[in-house]
Amino acid sequence: MRVCLTVAYDGTNYHGWQLQPNGITIESALNQALSDLLGETITVTGASRTDAGVHSLGNVAVFDTNTKIPAEKISYALNQRLPEDIVIQESREAAPDFHPRRCRSKKTYEYRILNRRFQDPTKRRNTHFYHYALDVKRMREAAQYLVGEHDFKSFCSVHSAAETTVRTIYSLKITKEDDVIAICISGSGFLYNMVRIIAGTLILVGNGTIDPKKIPDILDQKDRSAAGPTAPACGLTMLGIEFDGE
Amino acid sequence: MRVCLTVAYDGTNYHGWQLQPNGITIESALNQALSDLLGETITVTGASRTDAGVHSLGNVAVFDTNTKIPAEKISYALNQRLPEDIVIQESREAAPDFHPRRCRSKKTYEYRILNRRFQDPTKRRNTHFYHYALDVKRMREAAQYLVGEHDFKSFCSVHSAAETTVRTIYSLKITKEDDVIAICISGSGFLYNMVRIIAGTLILVGNGTIDPKKIPDILDQKDRSAAGPTAPACGLTMLGIEFDGE
Repeated sequence: MRVCLTVAYDGTNYHGWQLQPNGITIESALNQALSDLLGETITVTGASRTDAGVHSLGNVAVFDTNTKIPAEKISYALNQRLPEDIVIQESREAAPDFHPRRCRSKKTYEYRILNRRFQDPTKRRNTHFYHYALDVKRMREAAQYLVGEHDFKSFCSVHSAAETTVRTIYSLKITKEDDVIAICISGSGFLYNMVRIIAGTLILVGNGTIDPKKIPDILDQKDRSAAGPTAPACGLTMLGIEFDGE
Repeated sequence: MRVCLTVAYDGTNYHGWQLQPNGITIESALNQALSDLLGETITVTGASRTDAGVHSLGNVAVFDTNTKIPAEKISYALNQRLPEDIVIQESREAAPDFHPRRCRSKKTYEYRILNRRFQDPTKRRNTHFYHYALDVKRMREAAQYLVGEHDFKSFCSVHSAAETTVRTIYSLKITKEDDVIAICISGSGFLYNMVRIIAGTLILVGNGTIDPKKIPDILDQKDRSAAGPTAPACGLTMLGIEFDGE
């Protein structure tokens, strides 16, 4: 059967999702724990191949197995074998042809900025500390220009191999609670580093460097250097994925 | 001059505040960084000697120094020398006779419970994960009996050497946001493990084991075994201290 896992992790100590020749990754930790548990060689396929240091509450991985353990029980057994910074939230049987990167989906990410005078060490692992004042109203004004279907070439790492840089952002909401500014973005899919470049650009809008009304111009330029820097990985969390027809 | 520091820390990797023969503590890390910075042997005195694994956003420490560095600049210089999980929030000159444990103060602590089906690894360091359902309404009903001046002997570790077990709780508020239940307690001072025993007792109220109306009886018994267990250290954060006359 094909099994679908919902995977949460604190990415601080991992070299990202994808298998690496050096360094432990979420994918390698899952493959090892699953192979040990099920007594067969398991290779998972992930929905979102998050970068080093990026966190998740709801990434999705699938794998095929001959086990007789009911799919929904695998989460409990697997959590006993995983390190404490990776926790399976759900396991269930999937359709035999389900592939988490080849079907239409809505992905949601959150970028969290800790905006205060000094670092809060209890939040340092999953926020980006930024100590200059940020104007959330300006950031919201800029954000509205990014919603919808656009060519996001300016917001894509030059290392990307994507065929097209057109993507659709369904929603982009910015909230502030105490000293944490959260940028929550849902879309059909994201280019390499796209959410972090959007966050880095919105920070420059918030601190007064970029005029909110310049965002359409930055999109039009289709040039990575027109946008702001790539914000640090630690602020980014993949919140979840909804698949079409589910 | 006497200098007063506001100290935030992620306590996960420390053996608590107080100097220990084995293991690094917040106090030893501060003494070392201050002595290196100021070129004299510095010994800090802390307001709240938090236990191993307990966090802080606003603990207070004082020390005497001959330095010519203005007190308010010490925070910046000190943060360069401290590990990333200890961050000074403020430094300022204090009265020469100010002692953070010998003057009247209001201390505020927060105990955070992550109440969901599976652990969220991004919150595991500063919440206590508890997966059975908790009824916040019951917990609030129980909490009201603890507010005011009481003999908290039932809520004090048997290892305490306190002369009196009478303490005053000014407020005890319980909030729930998403899957985090936060118990926020302010008081004139707390007995050893008192906040964690209150949290452990309120968890047993929330899960249905203890009737909220039994709290006055638990207080009356003046017996540690009448109350619930000591909840784990990782859920506790000292939020701050207000000193009388400041």
